[in-house]
Amino acid sequence: MAELERTRSRRGREARGSDAPVRAVWPGLPGGRFLPLDAGEQRAVHEGALSLLETLGLSQAIPSMVARVTAAGGRQTADGRLLFPRALVEDCIAGARRDVVLHGRRDGLEIDLSGARIHMSSGGASPAIVDIETGRYRDATTRDLYDAARLVDALEHIHHFSRSLVARDAPDPLAMDVNTAYACLRGTAKHVSVSISEPGHVPAIAEMCHLIAGGERAFRERPFLTAMVCHVVPPMRFASEACATLEAAVLAGFPVQIISAGQAGATSPASIAGSLVQAVAETLAGLVFVRLVDPAARAIFAPKPLVADLRTGAMCGGGGEQAILMAGAAQMGRFYDLPTSSIAGITDAKVPDAQHGAEKALAVALAAHAGSNLITQSCGMQASLLGVSLESYVADNDMLGAILRTIRGVEVTEETLGLAAIAEVCRGEGHFLAHPQTYARMKSDYVYPAIGDRRSPRDWEAEGGLDLRARARQRAREILAGHHPQHVGAEADRAIRARHAILLSPEEVGTA
Amino acid sequence: MAELERTRSRRGREARGSDAPVRAVWPGLPGGRFLPLDAGEQRAVHEGALSLLETLGLSQAIPSMVARVTAAGGRQTADGRLLFPRALVEDCIAGARRDVVLHGRRDGLEIDLSGARIHMSSGGASPAIVDIETGRYRDATTRDLYDAARLVDALEHIHHFSRSLVARDAPDPLAMDVNTAYACLRGTAKHVSVSISEPGHVPAIAEMCHLIAGGERAFRERPFLTAMVCHVVPPMRFASEACATLEAAVLAGFPVQIISAGQAGATSPASIAGSLVQAVAETLAGLVFVRLVDPAARAIFAPKPLVADLRTGAMCGGGGEQAILMAGAAQMGRFYDLPTSSIAGITDAKVPDAQHGAEKALAVALAAHAGSNLITQSCGMQASLLGVSLESYVADNDMLGAILRTIRGVEVTEETLGLAAIAEVCRGEGHFLAHPQTYARMKSDYVYPAIGDRRSPRDWEAEGGLDLRARARQRAREILAGHHPQHVGAEADRAIRARHAILLSPEEVGTA
Repeated sequence: MAELERTRSRRGREARGSDAPVRAVWPGLPGGRFLPLDAGEQRAVHEGALSLLETLGLSQAIPSMVARVTAAGGRQTADGRLLFPRALVEDCIAGARRDVVLHGRRDGLEIDLSGARIHMSSGGASPAIVDIETGRYRDATTRDLYDAARLVDALEHIHHFSRSLVARDAPDPLAMDVNTAYACLRGTAKHVSVSISEPGHVPAIAEMCHLIAGGERAFRERPFLTAMVCHVVPPMRFASEACATLEAAVLAGFPVQIISAGQAGATSPASIAGSLVQAVAETLAGLVFVRLVDPAARAIFAPKPLVADLRTGAMCGGGGEQAILMAGAAQMGRFYDLPTSSIAGITDAKVPDAQHGAEKALAVALAAHAGSNLITQSCGMQASLLGVSLESYVADNDMLGAILRTIRGVEVTEETLGLAAIAEVCRGEGHFLAHPQTYARMKSDYVYPAIGDRRSPRDWEAEGGLDLRARARQRAREILAGHHPQHVGAEADRAIRARHAILLSPEEVGTA
Repeated sequence: MAELERTRSRRGREARGSDAPVRAVWPGLPGGRFLPLDAGEQRAVHEGALSLLETLGLSQAIPSMVARVTAAGGRQTADGRLLFPRALVEDCIAGARRDVVLHGRRDGLEIDLSGARIHMSSGGASPAIVDIETGRYRDATTRDLYDAARLVDALEHIHHFSRSLVARDAPDPLAMDVNTAYACLRGTAKHVSVSISEPGHVPAIAEMCHLIAGGERAFRERPFLTAMVCHVVPPMRFASEACATLEAAVLAGFPVQIISAGQAGATSPASIAGSLVQAVAETLAGLVFVRLVDPAARAIFAPKPLVADLRTGAMCGGGGEQAILMAGAAQMGRFYDLPTSSIAGITDAKVPDAQHGAEKALAVALAAHAGSNLITQSCGMQASLLGVSLESYVADNDMLGAILRTIRGVEVTEETLGLAAIAEVCRGEGHFLAHPQTYARMKSDYVYPAIGDRRSPRDWEAEGGLDLRARARQRAREILAGHHPQHVGAEADRAIRARHAILLSPEEVGTA
């Protein structure tokens, strides 16, 4: 018992820091108590992935990858598939960095991806947004992306901003990449992840980061932007240009998410286990490549297997199949003890309704408890990845707070069991409302929703009877009206604007 | 690998039966892969509960309980607390029945509570209902309860009907108990659980069951109605009349749910662990009593700890605290390997909105994965247990299907990993859409939502843009208009009506 107490209390204090404000949840709470795969099953998935890499390999490898992998013991088959020998893969897993920290641009925003520490993130690449005024789906713009970043900046339980919207107003791919990175970095000081369309765009994004960081060295030491790269077009085929981008991003010092996103039943097997083993194999192939490019690369293992609705072949992300598949993939990240990112919280709902809430909570809770370090799509996204709504960030933030509270767990210690306190109350007042422990735990142990309703039906009806969507919309508007962060210095801002046609005007970002 | 395959495939076939229709989920899928408490913590909670029972005991024991417990080695203190020695509690746990099956009144509706088999149930005792026409909260009636039962009867992923509404139109407590049981048993052939207000009402309910079953012996052999009894008024105090009801129900052959429902911060400690240990102790006290009344009793271990919002002292059920507390309690049921029931899915939301979905999914998923055999409140309930809505059953049914799919798990076997199939596809067509395995798994592996939306934003908008609540309301109306089950024979019905003033008219139940 005493040992239990020491472990749990220490964990809490260390995670929060000794003089941090009292709060019930915090970034980096340890997950990993949900074990969808038993030990034998984890081993079977691992062995299956090694076998696929060694005997089937991947097609469409780019020359620099072929050169690196064959120099390390791999070989290319006559029909052009690149084979990864078991020993090479195992060595790369063993040698991969486990000390990856994603930095923010303010103290306390660091995301430590080691162990089973859990963090919540937006996610996306949605082409559309639900207009907060009209309630209709429309093409997304750079301004929408900036607004999403500002919301995430202000919402407590979202720890990381993954570029959620595709800026459809950008005139060309380079302008899109540049304006995407700018909108994200202007909108939030939390760590930002973006995808980069082609290798030639990496220098422009790196330069922008260096300007903001105050130099390349400062950025490389504490990088605040990650490149997300889908290096494969499943099944078991490299995406050539994306691989070149991955290589360029690693060489530029960006942390990288190595993402495989097959769709069960379409681009990966219809069986959950088959889809999982393929995703693990594909992600490991990217990990090997990244490690051969730079052994010190900050690489994030990001198998993000998706699911197709087999009746239509269309992608769907809200079912139990998606939730358990992703939880299994997250657990494989723990099996390897690698910094791991998951996709969870894709809903097929078009608005923040009961379907939206249930589908998101199921998937995010299971991925988190399975031990994923960084859960993208945990907020904001709707419509099977086809749409974002701003009110959804606000709605989902409450959900994430509750999920994080379950990650914190029961915390069994002599003090928390409190047998003496129970006896004292039973022999005295007969209730715990006035017990000193109750008041003390009010803030330290309990998460309160920001917009979640806890009124009586009578009070709720009397006060307008709004559902969560309506309250989220109100709150999103309030935040957007009042939160104008200045996370990019004036000098850097001028320098960026001198180099690129920035779509967000100085007036829009409050620097005019 | 071969061993894996044998275990999993056998499990699936046995659970479904060899000639059952192909379906992706079924009642009794095995949970237990979420372990909120580690082994030491489970032991600490158990030891803490034994210590409370042995040294603090419970007050307000009724004479028959004092007699039974003291005869078995317990003793009453000078201030009237009944102490349960450790050996007595341990013996009762060891000797309790683990083969409890809750019967329905149609083949295939049996609920086997052994092992970690998971089942979903309504739950309640809500005084109010949201009128499906006006959308306003109002007092519930017998007719509402009957409608709720009919909905549950028709909804695939709800396996059990726990009396969800308090029939406020009943003129007195006996009429309420009788009409409640009648409305439930008329509305659904699934196993029904009700509470019984006082011991003197047990014979009337038993008689009704005997009439429906075709005799007392038939009912006792395959009981289709459980008595739910909150035998304590926490902290650590018996509810005298409820204990007498518990005794009478056991003697009448009813399965019994032994329920402790303290509220963390009000009637149990504010710490999650303290609330858990008290709930376990209180529930075990009931278990001992039941076993001393009848060693062959079908007893369900049902610690159902709740949570108060410490800012107001009001009960709230939608937070992460509630979810993790209940998951811990469910896991203690698995620690004891007892038939276990949990409360999960209480939402504080007033309508089926995003809060409703997220709060329910989080709590139900964690309780299920923690291994609870019967999850009451998993559907239908709203407003911190103060209200039910009929559309909520329909909305929640989809959620339960998805959760059950995650319980079914990843199922890693040589066949599901399908390495050869992956190689074949990669060297051939390049996608899995046309692969024979894909078609085969379309029904056997995938759950499709009944009303959950998977359309494109464009199609969804073009077809009316309804949220899940609106679609659930439509579907609930359709079911209620078309589903008129006749689960009570005409003769039994006449006999019941001859003995009691039944509020539901023959016209209302379709027998006129």
